[in-house]
Amino acid sequence: MAYAVSRAGNGNGLVIPKNHKKLLTLNVDHLYHLALDTQKDDLEKMFGDVQFVCFGGQPSRMEKFSAFVARELNISDHEMDGDTPRNYAAGTDRYSIHKVGPVLSVSHGIGIPSLSVVFNEIVKLVYYAKCKDVEFFRIGTCGGVGLEPGTVVVTEKAVDGEMNPYYKLAVLGKPVQRLAKVDQSLMESLLDCSEPDDNFKTVKGTTLCADDFYEGQARLDGAFCEYEEEDKMKFLQELKEKGVCNIEMESLGFLAMCHYAGIKGAVACVTLLDRLQQDTLSCDLQMLKKWQERPQNIVLRHIKKKQHIMNGES
Amino acid sequence: MAYAVSRAGNGNGLVIPKNHKKLLTLNVDHLYHLALDTQKDDLEKMFGDVQFVCFGGQPSRMEKFSAFVARELNISDHEMDGDTPRNYAAGTDRYSIHKVGPVLSVSHGIGIPSLSVVFNEIVKLVYYAKCKDVEFFRIGTCGGVGLEPGTVVVTEKAVDGEMNPYYKLAVLGKPVQRLAKVDQSLMESLLDCSEPDDNFKTVKGTTLCADDFYEGQARLDGAFCEYEEEDKMKFLQELKEKGVCNIEMESLGFLAMCHYAGIKGAVACVTLLDRLQQDTLSCDLQMLKKWQERPQNIVLRHIKKKQHIMNGES
Repeated sequence: MAYAVSRAGNGNGLVIPKNHKKLLTLNVDHLYHLALDTQKDDLEKMFGDVQFVCFGGQPSRMEKFSAFVARELNISDHEMDGDTPRNYAAGTDRYSIHKVGPVLSVSHGIGIPSLSVVFNEIVKLVYYAKCKDVEFFRIGTCGGVGLEPGTVVVTEKAVDGEMNPYYKLAVLGKPVQRLAKVDQSLMESLLDCSEPDDNFKTVKGTTLCADDFYEGQARLDGAFCEYEEEDKMKFLQELKEKGVCNIEMESLGFLAMCHYAGIKGAVACVTLLDRLQQDTLSCDLQMLKKWQERPQNIVLRHIKKKQHIMNGES
Repeated sequence: MAYAVSRAGNGNGLVIPKNHKKLLTLNVDHLYHLALDTQKDDLEKMFGDVQFVCFGGQPSRMEKFSAFVARELNISDHEMDGDTPRNYAAGTDRYSIHKVGPVLSVSHGIGIPSLSVVFNEIVKLVYYAKCKDVEFFRIGTCGGVGLEPGTVVVTEKAVDGEMNPYYKLAVLGKPVQRLAKVDQSLMESLLDCSEPDDNFKTVKGTTLCADDFYEGQARLDGAFCEYEEEDKMKFLQELKEKGVCNIEMESLGFLAMCHYAGIKGAVACVTLLDRLQQDTLSCDLQMLKKWQERPQNIVLRHIKKKQHIMNGES
């Protein structure tokens, strides 16, 4: 029965949260920050066919992504709110959830703590919904280090601001470290979705995950800054020498939580600027918005390939 | 000239960011996550009269707070978007900013990293706007520890998940600690705003600032949980014995950044449940919304008192 081998945490492709035994004892589980619960919402009926969960920072971007998915996968049977796919988390403004066919688009806000809240609740959602063989993606924006702006970076390794590959948190007053391990096959699959005709490069590299946008990313233009231009450049050059390609604020927690949950996860972000050249975005907003579609496109190509394989198409 | 004595970082009541010398060299400063900048926006004209900046997690709650401020201070000359005060950060969905008279209502999302981004940009905003004698507040919700749900806790001391009173961040790859020091006079002023007729208590105490809503707060109902009920209760009881009154996710960073910036800051949060009794919210949403107005009320009473003093009223 070699085919029955499943990944840790998953049985027969189902997502089984590490905490499922305690969850089974709950009369009702409130996914509080999503305004959904296991009593009023039939989560299996609503989300049972989800196979791809795509996280990104901004609600508006993830809403647009869901409309993009609908066009690209030619899916029209999803629920709508006016012109856009329905937001299932409309009962709150903490996060947003849009669903188009097998693709869930979820906003996570800024930073690992904000991500961790919605991540916990989405893992429980796909568990209650009995989703199978689910893959998680973070599709984001970032600063690049020595790359042409507009490049897509697929994270090969995520590190914190001190170059540690661990997501650190305190549990019952004690420090806990969880390794941010990238799913190699999923990472390679995303890299394979780069096409020769793309007018941008897709590369793999180390992602520095900062807890702050200004000092945490060596910017000179925050309210606080006790270092000089030369200190900043020395730091960024050292990052480049260590293989750091980009800087953002969620990859470490995202990959660590995926690995800990036994869920395949990968991160693809577009660089909006080259931090070796500048701190602030200088190009126009329309171009930035176009660039944001690049990692979305890479992930969507992967989704299409998987769909073809699952549908037995060649 | 005894009256000329000013607090560190402030000259004549103006907010001067530690990084103001580098900021002066910028042709234009993009407050990127607020969709405002020093070129297209006349920040002094728009925000020059701001004296109180109130931060809270959710955009909708802070929008309602701004409408509440308008009613309570009887101010009607602010700009409106339909029925509610204008959102000056409407060009982005990262954060929201509403202004009514001297009161700015700002959403900060969940967690310290999310807060830190908007905090940096709001400090720069009040600097460019030449605001004077500005006070910062975080008005939020939290879990209580051994308090009747609906109690308002004014933070006397903020600690992280390991009981350290420092906000930790990595700057240029090196760990940095910043003390989360409460402004005693502002804290006392908020406590003095409690009234005998209030149908809730307002207390001061230590606030535990967690980086996660589930494991970081000893909940049993997250996707991840490797401890048992008795471990949780032992931890929460220990917190209570150490003076911890409530648990939330931003106070430590907020107070540390206020102190570091030389801005008076205080935190008032309402407890939505008693964590010694439960993990999830059981009472109805209408009541929870009512309770959220309690710390808003406390801060607004302080604002009214200050306004009376400044207007020379008795």
